[in-house]
Amino acid sequence: MKVLIVGANGQIGKHLVKDIQDHDSLKARALIRKEEQASYFHDLGAETAIVDLEGEVDNIVEAAKGVDALVFTAGSGPHTGPDKTMMIDLDGAIKTMKAAEQAGVKRYVMISSFDTRREAIQSASESFAPYVVAKHYADEWLRGTNLNHTIIHPGKLTNDDGTGHVEAAAEVERGEVPRQDVARVILETLVHDSTIGKEFQVVSGQQSITDAVTSL
Amino acid sequence: MKVLIVGANGQIGKHLVKDIQDHDSLKARALIRKEEQASYFHDLGAETAIVDLEGEVDNIVEAAKGVDALVFTAGSGPHTGPDKTMMIDLDGAIKTMKAAEQAGVKRYVMISSFDTRREAIQSASESFAPYVVAKHYADEWLRGTNLNHTIIHPGKLTNDDGTGHVEAAAEVERGEVPRQDVARVILETLVHDSTIGKEFQVVSGQQSITDAVTSL
Repeated sequence: MKVLIVGANGQIGKHLVKDIQDHDSLKARALIRKEEQASYFHDLGAETAIVDLEGEVDNIVEAAKGVDALVFTAGSGPHTGPDKTMMIDLDGAIKTMKAAEQAGVKRYVMISSFDTRREAIQSASESFAPYVVAKHYADEWLRGTNLNHTIIHPGKLTNDDGTGHVEAAAEVERGEVPRQDVARVILETLVHDSTIGKEFQVVSGQQSITDAVTSL
Repeated sequence: MKVLIVGANGQIGKHLVKDIQDHDSLKARALIRKEEQASYFHDLGAETAIVDLEGEVDNIVEAAKGVDALVFTAGSGPHTGPDKTMMIDLDGAIKTMKAAEQAGVKRYVMISSFDTRREAIQSASESFAPYVVAKHYADEWLRGTNLNHTIIHPGKLTNDDGTGHVEAAAEVERGEVPRQDVARVILETLVHDSTIGKEFQVVSGQQSITDAVTSL
């Protein structure tokens, strides 16, 4: 299975491409914004595609041709300006869904934020709310597509080393989770079709990542 | 027919409430943000409802109870920050659609911007693009509802006196249009059910507003 990783140059993306390249039956194509980001991925034996998510959908379609799954882990993040939130977290995300549909990519894994429900918008601080709105509607759009999708809602991301153990369920207590573990959760999600049509929150916990993902 | 005007305190909204109150078979309920905005509407004999579009959907549902149509002419405008664009032009708009559905309001008229197609996003300047994205997805959401909707795409708005004459069609040449004429276009849209399910661009032109709207 070949996987297009949108946002490959982010911290989760870099872990994920490495994990995919280390896996027997998976291959990664890293979607990146700049040529100078490519060497990390080439060193891992991964393909790259240079695409600006603010550009034409056609360019994303081109990059998505021939892959079996698309992972969206790009993010302006909650700390960039709300203009980029609109262009990347909302519009960029939905463009990748359209591109997946047009390129015939059936499988789509979205890395969302921990809580994107209406209640989370209403209770968010004024500065954080636009980010939650963007993720809310990106998730909503994905649910309305015919893509075989999974929506992952990770807790507060840290740069700690992964432990290989998490708690995953429709709702879990708010908590932290290392980006390295999130990458492994994504990989297990990709290889287990039982996750199709599901969405779940994930934080650090006691279950092995494989067990946590397969028992969803 | 009673009409809830969301964004009544804006310039188009003020013209519209006046036109509605002057009309034999229409009555306005002005949705406003602050108590001190109410006197203008009360002087016209219109009802008011004080609701913050960034607040709970339930408050909008309450304000929409008992009306027959909802007009969305609120707008952070392209010149406020992109945070308000996300909260008002996208999320606020969609919340009013949900509220209309929950309150049993069947008719919904959206005042969009002149061009909200994908091409318009891609060709917009970096500062304008987030606004076009917000309006694009608000329009998209409305098309996906079961509301009896009309989407009006006015040209560049001016404060000139209305002429009572416009050009309206699915696509027209880019041009200006006085806010006063847009308000009259909305009123004619409300009273002519032939506009249900349609969307059109409108600029100043040669046709009387009634003729332009009824010949769509």
